[in-house]
Amino acid sequence: VSLDPGFTTSESRRIFGFDNRLARMLEVESALARASAAAGVMPTAAAEAIRASCESWTTEESASSLFAAGWEAGSPVVPLVARLRELVGEDAAPYVHLGATTQDVVDTGLVLQIREGLGALERHLVDAGRILAALAERHRDTVMAGRTLMQPAAPITFGLKAAGWLDGLTRDLERTRRLPERLALQLGGPVGTLAGFGERGLAVAEEMGRILDLPVPAMPWHTARDRIAETAAVLALASRTVVKVAGDLILLAQAEVGEVSMRAGGSSSLEGKRNPIDAIRATAAARFAGGQAAILLAAVPYEHERAAGAWHTEWVAVPTLFHGTLAAVEALGRALSTLEVHAERMSANLGDLGSDAGLAGRFVDRVLDPFREAVR
Amino acid sequence: VSLDPGFTTSESRRIFGFDNRLARMLEVESALARASAAAGVMPTAAAEAIRASCESWTTEESASSLFAAGWEAGSPVVPLVARLRELVGEDAAPYVHLGATTQDVVDTGLVLQIREGLGALERHLVDAGRILAALAERHRDTVMAGRTLMQPAAPITFGLKAAGWLDGLTRDLERTRRLPERLALQLGGPVGTLAGFGERGLAVAEEMGRILDLPVPAMPWHTARDRIAETAAVLALASRTVVKVAGDLILLAQAEVGEVSMRAGGSSSLEGKRNPIDAIRATAAARFAGGQAAILLAAVPYEHERAAGAWHTEWVAVPTLFHGTLAAVEALGRALSTLEVHAERMSANLGDLGSDAGLAGRFVDRVLDPFREAVR
Amino acid sequence: VSLDPGFTTSESRRIFGFDNRLARMLEVESALARASAAAGVMPTAAAEAIRASCESWTTEESASSLFAAGWEAGSPVVPLVARLRELVGEDAAPYVHLGATTQDVVDTGLVLQIREGLGALERHLVDAGRILAALAERHRDTVMAGRTLMQPAAPITFGLKAAGWLDGLTRDLERTRRLPERLALQLGGPVGTLAGFGERGLAVAEEMGRILDLPVPAMPWHTARDRIAETAAVLALASRTVVKVAGDLILLAQAEVGEVSMRAGGSSSLEGKRNPIDAIRATAAARFAGGQAAILLAAVPYEHERAAGAWHTEWVAVPTLFHGTLAAVEALGRALSTLEVHAERMSANLGDLGSDAGLAGRFVDRVLDPFREAVR
Amino acid sequence: VSLDPGFTTSESRRIFGFDNRLARMLEVESALARASAAAGVMPTAAAEAIRASCESWTTEESASSLFAAGWEAGSPVVPLVARLRELVGEDAAPYVHLGATTQDVVDTGLVLQIREGLGALERHLVDAGRILAALAERHRDTVMAGRTLMQPAAPITFGLKAAGWLDGLTRDLERTRRLPERLALQLGGPVGTLAGFGERGLAVAEEMGRILDLPVPAMPWHTARDRIAETAAVLALASRTVVKVAGDLILLAQAEVGEVSMRAGGSSSLEGKRNPIDAIRATAAARFAGGQAAILLAAVPYEHERAAGAWHTEWVAVPTLFHGTLAAVEALGRALSTLEVHAERMSANLGDLGSDAGLAGRFVDRVLDPFREAVR
Repeated sequence: VSLDPGFTTSESRRIFGFDNRLARMLEVESALARASAAAGVMPTAAAEAIRASCESWTTEESASSLFAAGWEAGSPVVPLVARLRELVGEDAAPYVHLGATTQDVVDTGLVLQIREGLGALERHLVDAGRILAALAERHRDTVMAGRTLMQPAAPITFGLKAAGWLDGLTRDLERTRRLPERLALQLGGPVGTLAGFGERGLAVAEEMGRILDLPVPAMPWHTARDRIAETAAVLALASRTVVKVAGDLILLAQAEVGEVSMRAGGSSSLEGKRNPIDAIRATAAARFAGGQAAILLAAVPYEHERAAGAWHTEWVAVPTLFHGTLAAVEALGRALSTLEVHAERMSANLGDLGSDAGLAGRFVDRVLDPFREAVR
Repeated sequence: VSLDPGFTTSESRRIFGFDNRLARMLEVESALARASAAAGVMPTAAAEAIRASCESWTTEESASSLFAAGWEAGSPVVPLVARLRELVGEDAAPYVHLGATTQDVVDTGLVLQIREGLGALERHLVDAGRILAALAERHRDTVMAGRTLMQPAAPITFGLKAAGWLDGLTRDLERTRRLPERLALQLGGPVGTLAGFGERGLAVAEEMGRILDLPVPAMPWHTARDRIAETAAVLALASRTVVKVAGDLILLAQAEVGEVSMRAGGSSSLEGKRNPIDAIRATAAARFAGGQAAILLAAVPYEHERAAGAWHTEWVAVPTLFHGTLAAVEALGRALSTLEVHAERMSANLGDLGSDAGLAGRFVDRVLDPFREAVR
Repeated sequence: VSLDPGFTTSESRRIFGFDNRLARMLEVESALARASAAAGVMPTAAAEAIRASCESWTTEESASSLFAAGWEAGSPVVPLVARLRELVGEDAAPYVHLGATTQDVVDTGLVLQIREGLGALERHLVDAGRILAALAERHRDTVMAGRTLMQPAAPITFGLKAAGWLDGLTRDLERTRRLPERLALQLGGPVGTLAGFGERGLAVAEEMGRILDLPVPAMPWHTARDRIAETAAVLALASRTVVKVAGDLILLAQAEVGEVSMRAGGSSSLEGKRNPIDAIRATAAARFAGGQAAILLAAVPYEHERAAGAWHTEWVAVPTLFHGTLAAVEALGRALSTLEVHAERMSANLGDLGSDAGLAGRFVDRVLDPFREAVR
Repeated sequence: VSLDPGFTTSESRRIFGFDNRLARMLEVESALARASAAAGVMPTAAAEAIRASCESWTTEESASSLFAAGWEAGSPVVPLVARLRELVGEDAAPYVHLGATTQDVVDTGLVLQIREGLGALERHLVDAGRILAALAERHRDTVMAGRTLMQPAAPITFGLKAAGWLDGLTRDLERTRRLPERLALQLGGPVGTLAGFGERGLAVAEEMGRILDLPVPAMPWHTARDRIAETAAVLALASRTVVKVAGDLILLAQAEVGEVSMRAGGSSSLEGKRNPIDAIRATAAARFAGGQAAILLAAVPYEHERAAGAWHTEWVAVPTLFHGTLAAVEALGRALSTLEVHAERMSANLGDLGSDAGLAGRFVDRVLDPFREAVR
């Protein structure tokens, strides 16, 4: 599938690519086997064989074909497990995937991908935040017009404006970092009772959580999907921040305002035209991301012990959500990293607003401190 | 305006009614005056006059007319302040609203309404949660079919199903209770610099926060609207939980399944028809709420120091969001409070699935404990 | 319920008020009775008694209470029919609502409200369109900067810009006028078979369609809700047009651009500030409307012969959709009606772009002609 | 980018792939050249050289790289035109893209892709419709329970149910077929004035419309994006129909209801489990599609003569919209093509509802006739 490259990043393509998706699912099968052995419900030799085959997985079929075959079979884990059973040999074959169900592998695999995606998001947020912090500090006293309802109102400083952007972004960072507590191991077996492990189910889950470094939930979350939806909410909030900042940059870069400029893209028809292409890309990608988040946040039925549709939608909307969000924050960072601030123009645009920016400097400090604390 | 009563509650109508909206704005003006006096930027007599007039506010104009007049004037605070200046008398008039701007009063007033709304939401969640907890405990060992992708899969217990619902709801409760840390005082003056208070701006804000019992933010959040949007996200997540639970109830109440029944609504054409009307209302209201949340979560521009539109949309979408969410959780609670569980039918529907519900009972305990801790 | 008055209009409040909603439902019951008599399935005297009671409906209960009671009873038509049976007297009582079901009355009543709402929308669109047409003509040769990606690009005329706005609005008008073909009578009885009328069901439907001036559909649309959703789509498209036009007005009215001005709203803190309040209201209301449309367009389940929730959501989201859309178009019209165009500033802002606006004038004509044809 | 294959189709991948996107843009550049020559604003030899190079386009760079390079350059047409100028040779180079702008090529190219996509959608709708028509006819008299609010209400026939599905789908087909009148040529030059063609601009546009078989609009639609948004609305409505039909299939296939069955997918953990995987895929893909449509229908700003973001979002959301919609309708068709109807179970489930299905048969005819007319 060919999504326009403006709406993905090289990282998002890797993390949410077929190969990594399959690799993460194999990582889950491997961890399940090892945990089962540790909990005494699987022979160690079988677990080792499974682990080895997961790590050295080979097949003539591409990951892409495997996922396509999954829709024929009813689940992507059906062909995966079938092939894995071939690879591990006759003795270990009965132990492959033992006690688990498709949802365990798909959800835990997705959680591993999400964790990678959150890592990338955090890095992008920190990068953008550092630039904003530097701008806030450098322009602590650069007076400019504050504009409300799109009309000049009273003086602020560019430092205050940058601090206002950073203030929101700092909370995005906090929310992003808090998310992993929600991103729990999924292990429940066919209906979430762990019945296939006898009394040892929780021991397997605990060990599997340890191996994968994931929290073990109070109970399987086969049907309580707020964990995924809350992830969507956090990314939607970050996308809104991007649109806020990039939107202001575009407004400030208007020729008639002229208070900032950025790396410019050209035009196919007008020489010398300077379009704020990174900020534009940021808003476009953020809006795409927002739409994906809305899918995951919608109040649709999630029937009984596994939803007939709403669950499957996550398989595509979580990736598109991360593609768009990462593209948006990356593009914003690029716009910010090339930002030129035209203080003289800011001053000229003040007109008769005066220059009393009140506590702008104090507010800059109050925003910078917690951000610096957060990224130390 | 006449919203169908299924999509509001008596509390939501009071909290988000014109009268309370105006009362909360007056509470803000009063707190501003008192805080200004305490910080030494306003004579105590003026502050007392303002406080008295806010508390005894009288006018021939209804609150509704005042808000309509606001759109003529450009802001609801314009007619409010004009009338307040008449009421306080000539000496105090110049001190009314001094240093503040419309957004300070509107946002802080909205935050006060939201706080009331969250209180109602929390009560409804706790009520529904207690019923779920009782159901989970009572039916710890009531075996029934677990259904995945809408087909029978393996045994669970009704206790586990109720625990799964409660598990999500417990996190909704946690998120709801965590929100007030975001719901901060708004005080910034025209562009968020507090320039109108000289050096005393932060002292005024601190005192005002103390009076209204609201956190004082690092800087005014005139333009960083994630506080409102995160509120929307939390309510959207709660709405999703409602749709999950109410949806399952409706599925279980199908005549062909017959595993639960609830208070029934009748039909205008068929005698004896038994419709699960409260669960239906819950899903309908939750979907309405979800749509309102989506408005507040959308990545739209929030221009410069006060948005030309996106801010105003909050004035209507926050109320509709709370109407829908409170109606949804209230209706779910009513459906649950009248729930009858038909264990014999559950048993009959098991067919040849067996009766091994694995660790269902253990999971019930693991979910009940933190919920009980949370609502102790 | 108290929706901020910026997001409703006096017409929208009347059309979607409780009283009119009830009146329309009574109109449907009356038409059903008369049509039944005409088709020979009801005594004429009973039909006359029902008609008379519908027209002179009196009750101590307010319309609002009736709709609240509906949620207790299971349907708003249950208390309505109960009261109507009291009013018509013993002989006619058994004929009240005969053969119909709640959905027939609710849906047809809603269609009647929608038809009124579309009439109001059409008037607002025509009003705004006429102003745009006059602007396009008057400023056929008023050269200004065309701006792409928010940067000056090449000359256009303000007439072309107004024509571009009108071009979209003309299609909104066309879509609005085409909608009534979708807004069909609903008459199906409990499950859409018209079984209660024996062989005369279609005759009753045809006569009822004639009385209410509504198309009779191929079959009852109890479950094919695209008629409502397509209505939502048309209003969503109109809302987008409003945001386009009002957004451009706000951008052109920026002090640094200064090419247009409109009726200004004031500020509670800054004397002399001139905020484009009507354009702001237009964008805010349009965004609210867009969110309501999204609810109605969402791909949610519409179960079997009557949905358990999705149907009920229409009862609130159709009204909020019309409130927002009508408010948006009305506010845009007001902004446009007070528009001042500053041609000298447009000229000054051209800078070195030259003045060759190409075929701008020709395009103005090509847009004006079909609009004038449409509103002749 | 790796979208899960359940949410695309082989056709959607081809039509919205990088290669076809590039091919369509080259087709536009070629048509522009030929039309310019025909209108006398370009030497025929230059036009022929451009046409030849567009048709034999070769480059070491993949289409994917070109689109990535576009974000560096500011527009995908910048590297495309640069390479095309190399290919056509020195004499023709100045004529490449003459008078046009990026948006002309991107929008017209997208329109060509959309036209292909609508062709695929129409075929899928007709295929599904034919199956529904056959089911409606075959089961004209197969009595089953009509269910309202998820409770048994009164008898219908399965023919009537299928006719109800077909009734909505017939309107989807009508809307799909009506759309091409909106999908117009885009040719306006940098700001929509066609200034680069002198007096011959309209002649070029007319000729280009003839070559590409596209309607020529009253004026360039650079900024009136309802054409794209209306496309989104039509696909959203089709997605809703899919969710309605597939949702009912899933409900009817519940083991406890057992009135239909379809091709079943298996499970990774439970042998013999029969999941209605195609209907599940249909609902999941439809919901994904609905989310993409919502992005395109949202009331976001579309600034001045070319939007800084909202336009770019179309580049990704139109493709994802078609991927999801085509996948949904294709999957629904597959579910329907394997449908088995269990009439005896329908009869048994009727219980004491009786068997009077009223005019069900008449309604079947009234729905079948226009559908057959439409697909003759």
